[in-house]
Amino acid sequence: METLLSNPALRLFGVTYLILVLKMVAVGYATSFYRIRDKHFATPEDYRLQGLMPKTGVNEDVERARRAHQNDLENIVPYFGAGLLYALSNPSLGMARLYFIGFTVARILHSVFYLLQLQPWRTIVWSIGHALLLFMVLSTLLALV
Amino acid sequence: METLLSNPALRLFGVTYLILVLKMVAVGYATSFYRIRDKHFATPEDYRLQGLMPKTGVNEDVERARRAHQNDLENIVPYFGAGLLYALSNPSLGMARLYFIGFTVARILHSVFYLLQLQPWRTIVWSIGHALLLFMVLSTLLALV
Amino acid sequence: METLLSNPALRLFGVTYLILVLKMVAVGYATSFYRIRDKHFATPEDYRLQGLMPKTGVNEDVERARRAHQNDLENIVPYFGAGLLYALSNPSLGMARLYFIGFTVARILHSVFYLLQLQPWRTIVWSIGHALLLFMVLSTLLALV
Repeated sequence: METLLSNPALRLFGVTYLILVLKMVAVGYATSFYRIRDKHFATPEDYRLQGLMPKTGVNEDVERARRAHQNDLENIVPYFGAGLLYALSNPSLGMARLYFIGFTVARILHSVFYLLQLQPWRTIVWSIGHALLLFMVLSTLLALV
Repeated sequence: METLLSNPALRLFGVTYLILVLKMVAVGYATSFYRIRDKHFATPEDYRLQGLMPKTGVNEDVERARRAHQNDLENIVPYFGAGLLYALSNPSLGMARLYFIGFTVARILHSVFYLLQLQPWRTIVWSIGHALLLFMVLSTLLALV
Repeated sequence: METLLSNPALRLFGVTYLILVLKMVAVGYATSFYRIRDKHFATPEDYRLQGLMPKTGVNEDVERARRAHQNDLENIVPYFGAGLLYALSNPSLGMARLYFIGFTVARILHSVFYLLQLQPWRTIVWSIGHALLLFMVLSTLLALV
């Protein structure tokens, strides 16, 4: 098996994917932080556990963190397949570095800008990450067919 | 590494997965299209960026596209694992073609029928894709244990 | 290709991932069950198909099953990447068994406790699964860099 992870593009892909997992975990922690700070929970049983009456309405900070998490799922699910297959398609290491590191930095900044409500920066870094993902998908499709 | 993608079932899996990524991206674009057309955005800062007052309530077209996207996540996340492991389990190429191409066509039609509100067609193609996914999961489990 | 699945850690990872896919499918069935039992559907066209008027408001059982499903996506997406890369990083088989089987059992119990509204048990098993995921991510990062 060591041949698989001795592929440098695949190693780099693995490192960037795991960093993105930790980033996604951090966004989940932000949701929990806002829920606990504002005592605004997801379920009636969570309120009971705290001895509180359920709140109605939405908490804007909780919803913002949840939207950032959802945006991660929508973008990191494609990245796992596209990045892994791209790494296996014998790419130039320079292009692999550009795509993998560029995508990872763009997605980290996306979460930061989302939680800090910094527009149009959030849209700009989303677009950069999205363009890099499309390039990876199209390069890999060309290599596979 | 070329041995990995010289597995024809794995190549076909890769192509179908990448096509499904592009399809999922298209559903995301549909959400953005409806948000911009109806000026119905996700966050207060997006309204500010456009110089608009935040709208209350939900936009039915935006919500429909978001549900189609969510249904993709719920089905394509399992497909990535199940299809990749199935391709690695030394399947007959004929069965692999049936499963991978059938699942991909069913999911493309699912998005089209969802956005066009065509029932019971949406439920029918969802069921076909779901049945193919279950067959892949069970065949792969049998091969692995 | 048989060398890939002849890696015992990778085989075990594959089996646990596929079991988690079946578990996630079961949570999706729970959502459908509550929708049909309470005639509380997702879209106007689903109500039309049943010859019913659309209901307003949310159904607490449907929403609970959907939250359990969403929590699965948030946790199983990271697991697919982290577990696969961990299995490829030449781990000890004993540690791989602990991580993969522990995570799988914790996630199955999480769904059961979520649907039965059993707190603090749901939070306890979520935390165990989450800790195992973090250990896998960090071990794999150490092996890769």
